[in-house]
This record gives sequence, C-alpha cells and structure tokens, in this order.
Amino acid sequence: MIPLPPEGELTHQPIGDFQTEAGAVIRDVTVAYQRWGEFHGDPHGRNNLILVEHALTGDSNAVVWWDGLIGPGAPIDTDRFCVICTNVLGGCSGTTGPSSDHPDGGKWGSRFPATSIRDHVRTEAHFLEALGITSMHAVIGGSMGGARTLEWTLMYPDWANYACVIAMSARASAWQIGIQSAQISAIERDPDWQGGDYYGTGRSPDAGLSAARRLAHLTYRGELEIDERFGTMAQPGENPLGAFRDRQQRFAVQSYLDYQGQRLVERFDAGSYVTITESLSRHDIGRGRGGLNRALAQITVPTMVVGVDTDILYPFHQQEHISRNIGNLLAMNKIVSPVGHDAFLVETRQMGHILRNFIAMADQTPSASDLAKEQGNYDI
Amino acid sequence: MIPLPPEGELTHQPIGDFQTEAGAVIRDVTVAYQRWGEFHGDPHGRNNLILVEHALTGDSNAVVWWDGLIGPGAPIDTDRFCVICTNVLGGCSGTTGPSSDHPDGGKWGSRFPATSIRDHVRTEAHFLEALGITSMHAVIGGSMGGARTLEWTLMYPDWANYACVIAMSARASAWQIGIQSAQISAIERDPDWQGGDYYGTGRSPDAGLSAARRLAHLTYRGELEIDERFGTMAQPGENPLGAFRDRQQRFAVQSYLDYQGQRLVERFDAGSYVTITESLSRHDIGRGRGGLNRALAQITVPTMVVGVDTDILYPFHQQEHISRNIGNLLAMNKIVSPVGHDAFLVETRQMGHILRNFIAMADQTPSASDLAKEQGNYDI
Repeated sequence: MIPLPPEGELTHQPIGDFQTEAGAVIRDVTVAYQRWGEFHGDPHGRNNLILVEHALTGDSNAVVWWDGLIGPGAPIDTDRFCVICTNVLGGCSGTTGPSSDHPDGGKWGSRFPATSIRDHVRTEAHFLEALGITSMHAVIGGSMGGARTLEWTLMYPDWANYACVIAMSARASAWQIGIQSAQISAIERDPDWQGGDYYGTGRSPDAGLSAARRLAHLTYRGELEIDERFGTMAQPGENPLGAFRDRQQRFAVQSYLDYQGQRLVERFDAGSYVTITESLSRHDIGRGRGGLNRALAQITVPTMVVGVDTDILYPFHQQEHISRNIGNLLAMNKIVSPVGHDAFLVETRQMGHILRNFIAMADQTPSASDLAKEQGNYDI
Repeated sequence: MIPLPPEGELTHQPIGDFQTEAGAVIRDVTVAYQRWGEFHGDPHGRNNLILVEHALTGDSNAVVWWDGLIGPGAPIDTDRFCVICTNVLGGCSGTTGPSSDHPDGGKWGSRFPATSIRDHVRTEAHFLEALGITSMHAVIGGSMGGARTLEWTLMYPDWANYACVIAMSARASAWQIGIQSAQISAIERDPDWQGGDYYGTGRSPDAGLSAARRLAHLTYRGELEIDERFGTMAQPGENPLGAFRDRQQRFAVQSYLDYQGQRLVERFDAGSYVTITESLSRHDIGRGRGGLNRALAQITVPTMVVGVDTDILYPFHQQEHISRNIGNLLAMNKIVSPVGHDAFLVETRQMGHILRNFIAMADQTPSASDLAKEQGNYDI
C-alpha cells in the first residue's frame, strides 16, 4: 500500500543527500509534490501512475497550469489514473532550491550547485523510491518538463511504460543557450543580486528577474499572437510617441510585458530562476551516450512527440529530429497555433485531443516490458 | 555642379536646426556622409544618384558593411552611379547624436530627443537640399535602412525614382517593440548609464550595451546558423558543465555572443543605441496616413521588396504584406539562408543578384514621373 497524501495537498518528501551529475552534494533534499486520483496496481510493475512534469517556472500544482487537462473525466483522467507532479530540484515551490534553508544555516544562495536535467530526473526517481514506487504507466511533460520526460526514457527505461514529450529538443540549441544566458545575465547584472546571496539582505533582484521574464516571454509567445493583441497600440493613457523617450509612456505591449515580469517577481525566486534556466542550457541527451542520435535510437519506451508549428524557442524541426531518430515512436503531433511555444499550455482543445490520443494509443501499444515478455515467451 | 567631397571621404554637412516629428528641436544638426562614383545629371530631375541607407548600428561607410555590393563593376556600380550614404540622425559616426557636443556645452546625452524613422528621412532630405539635390535615381536600404527607404517613398514621392526595401515591415510589430524595449532596458538598468548623461563621468554603460547587443544578435541570426556553428560545444579551455555555475566557464556560443557585445562596445555609443533603437519602435508608415494598407497603396515609386526566409526579427510574412498592398510593386525577392535577418548583409552572392536585378528592372520600368509625363502626353 502506497502512503499517498490527500488529493491535491502540497506534501514534502525528504529524500536525503543528493549528488549532482557534476559532483556537488546537496544535503537533505526535500521534494514537494501533489497527487490526484487513487493509486492502483503494482508499485513495482503495472500500475496507473502518471508522472506529469512542469515547465521552467511551473510547480507541482498541475491541475492549475494544465487547467482542463487533468481531472475526473479530463484527458488525463484522474478517475482512472493517479497523477503525481513534483516541484523540480532547485525550484521555489517546496522542493529544495537556492531559497531553501541550508543545513549549516542561512539560505543556500550561491552554495546551491548547478544542476542538469538528469539531476532533476534522478531526484524524482529517488522521490518515487522513497514512496515505494519504481514503475509507472506514463511520464508526460512539456518544455523543460519534456526534457525531463525524454531523460526519463533513457535514465530509467524500465520505469515508465509510455512517454509524451512536448515542445522540446534532444539537446539545447546554441540559440537557446544564448537566450537563456541573456536571461541569467539580466539577473546577475542587477546590483541587488549580490552574487546570488541576497536572501535576508532586504534587497532582491526584482528588476533583473522581471527583465529576464519579459525577455523569456517573447520566446514563449509567437510574434503573430503578440502582434494580433497589441500591434503598435499605446497603453491607454500613455503616449509612447512623445518628444522624449520616457519609460513611463509605453506601447501596450511594453505594459503587457511589464505585467508578465511583475507577476513572476511576485511568485518566483530569482535564484531558482537562474539555477533552473542554467539546467536547460545543459540539456543534452547525447552526453555520455555516444551522441544525440545514438541516444535517441536507444529509447525503447513508446514515446509520443508533440510540437508547435510557430514555436521559435523549440522550433518544430527539433521535434521532427526526435521523432525521426527515436527508437520507439508512438506518434508525432503538431499543435497549430499563432501562440508559439506556450501553445501546449493554452491551446487546451488541441492539447486535450493529443493527450486523449496518447492515452488511447498507449492502451493499444505494447510497452517495452510487454515486448520483452512476449520475446521471452517466444524464446520458450 | 554639385560640390561633392573626395570619393569615400567622411564629410560633415551642417543642416541647421531640426524639429522632430514629436515637436522637439535639435539645434545645429550635422549630417556625416560618404560618396562614391561621379554625380551626373540634373540634381532636380533625372540623375544617377543612389542613396544607400544603413542599418541600426551601421554607418556611412557602405562599401565596408556591404562589401562586394557597391563599387566599380559591383551590383551597385559606382562606374555608373553616384552612391551616397549618410550616418543616421542620432548616430555616433559623425551625424549629430547623444554623444555630440550640445550648443550650450557638454554632450547632448538625455537632452537628445526621441526621433522617428520619419525624422531620419527628413534630416536626409534637408542634407540633400543642402547639397543642392532634390531628386535621385534610387533609394536602397535593409533593416532600419529599409524602414527609411519605405518612408522615403511616402514622404518624398517625387524624389526617388525607384526604391528597394529589404528585410523590413510596414510598421514595428509588438514583438519587435518588446525585444527592442528589452535592449533599451538592458542599457538603462546599467548603473553606469546615469540616465543617459554618462559622458565625461569616466563611467559608461558598457555591460548594458554589451547585453543589449548579445540579445539583438540572437534576433539577427537564425537559430539554424548559430546552432550549426556552435551547438552545445564548450569554449576551448572552459567547462560550462562544472559543479557550480560560473560566468567564466562558457559554452562556445556564450563566448561568441560576448565577443559580439564587446565589439559593439568598442565602436558604438550606448546613447545612440538607445535613441536609434527607440526610433525603430516608432516605425509605422500608417501613422497619420489612414492606416498601413492605405499608406502602402499610396506608394507610387516602383519598389522592390526583399525578405529572408529564416528572419525571426522581420519575418517574411511582413515583406509579403508590403508586397501585396504596395501601390507600385517592382518585384518581390526572397533570400534563402539559414542566417536569418543578417542574410542581406552576408549572403553576398544572393544579394548581388537581387541588386543587379533591381537596377535592371528599374532601367526597364517607367518611374512615377515618367508615367505622369506619358499621362500628360495622352492628355494633349
């Protein structure tokens, strides 16, 4: 019997010390998570667990950021499945990160090491082991969650029977590293950053974090969608065409981006933003596995790959690359939308069809372990 | 006889006080320019002058930034044409800008007003008038130079007989305003910016300007090209995958972007960068002309429109929009390249064909004044 907390309740699971891929140790790691739906089946074999992986500034509250896609009767149906979502390592929504207390006192701050996507996945595996689980029906994630999903299929090929990778690449592109570095730089150049040790100083790099988010948002949203909404309109009551440049006299899109930046400042920690963003620059499933395509070819988990036609951050050709080289492709899907990268979060109708399709195809497709058993039977 | 300076020599032409579109006055404006090839013809009628318009951080030295495209026997053939290129208003290569001396002492700094693309064009017209010229064969420009070219066709429809607009839109898109604002913000948030009045303080916002350029560069170059060159490679001798994040341990693409930023810091003024970038956010040919398509329909100058298939800053659909609505389309051309926006500067072979084609088509196509004369003849 798996001891799961009440449905939807944010719960903290200690998993002990954790050593990163690059060799640093994070002591006394806690993983925060939420779950929905009852767990049924064998925690070490066939069961009904679906692990949902959040994106960069997401958290474990998957029913909020994927509103309409997870719940009773929803595409990820909690009447049938037990859904678990953890806050990523380095985050600021319950899992150990730069803003968490350090065992030696104070906050982690600059003592928090660099982490990779593989570290994120391994902490999740340790977390599941702490719950007594070493197997699940599926792992699903978009954007950074898609990177974790892809690593799950390679690091723990026997755990998830099916995988759904959305709006992600097999490795960071140089352009992504560039734009991610620009965001980190925006925070680092804020004098209130203080080398990452701003906790308790009464000053925090809000301006830098806001700038990073404004920039990131322009990569999450397609120019078509942003232009449809704002064009060159002035923010009501402001005049961006005055005789002198004035930061208070804005185009509507500037006000919109300011709002996006401010919203993030209110809910997110700059240290977490830097750490998690850095991990995306380290994403490379080919590392230590003989290169990208060799790694992809090794994947035995039936995997659905999903992309967005207007995504400039993770362009569709990157999902095509995965789908053409992956060892076990369940299906390939394209979200058609002016929205760009964020379409997997906001095009609920299309995403719903895709997720229902994923669940249905998984039902009709043998998993790698099913095939291994069949193969075993033939061998007898 | 037009008194032109020696070929290629940077020359300064005073044009007096200038009032901006938004109503500010810039006193004692000087326009810096260079010319190549001999001037022939009627300075107020048919002549051989081609005005070439530079991009954001360009200057009047067009034979350098368009190396191979302007010169004797080149696509813009200085054996046949007289080419003039001016440094834009607000620039830092000889034309009056924030780093120029203010008539009342000190540098202009924050006293330099906001300017629009229309202000840039009107200063150029005043400059040509100061030379005794009110007519030219053609105006050609890419990126911001394309914005000026487009405004030339509307503000002075009788001056240029032909126009070539490259990698530009009819107005700033909201996405462009957003990314341009992010660059301005990177400079403004640098403590050394000092509200724009850093001249003579011994401190200049180099870090902010470098950050702005790194960011801009990611919009000038297609992700395909950047990825082809750098992928996830480490900068030789550095390890971006260490146990702790370290700005000195970089991916190759970070080093490349740092270099681009540093190079700009060495040759460009942050005040000019802010002022000129702001003017691009104000680009809108529809303003005061009944909207975009009505403005485009008014264009009588035979105009070639050119775009780049992989441009994410000025996507090709924006050039299609111009070409579909412009009152007199000479031709539409697409540069096919992984390079993105900057392709018009670096795909010399393709750009050469396009410019030769532009010159040849202009030779075979009646200008608006030719048509007016024909119309006049019919009327008789």
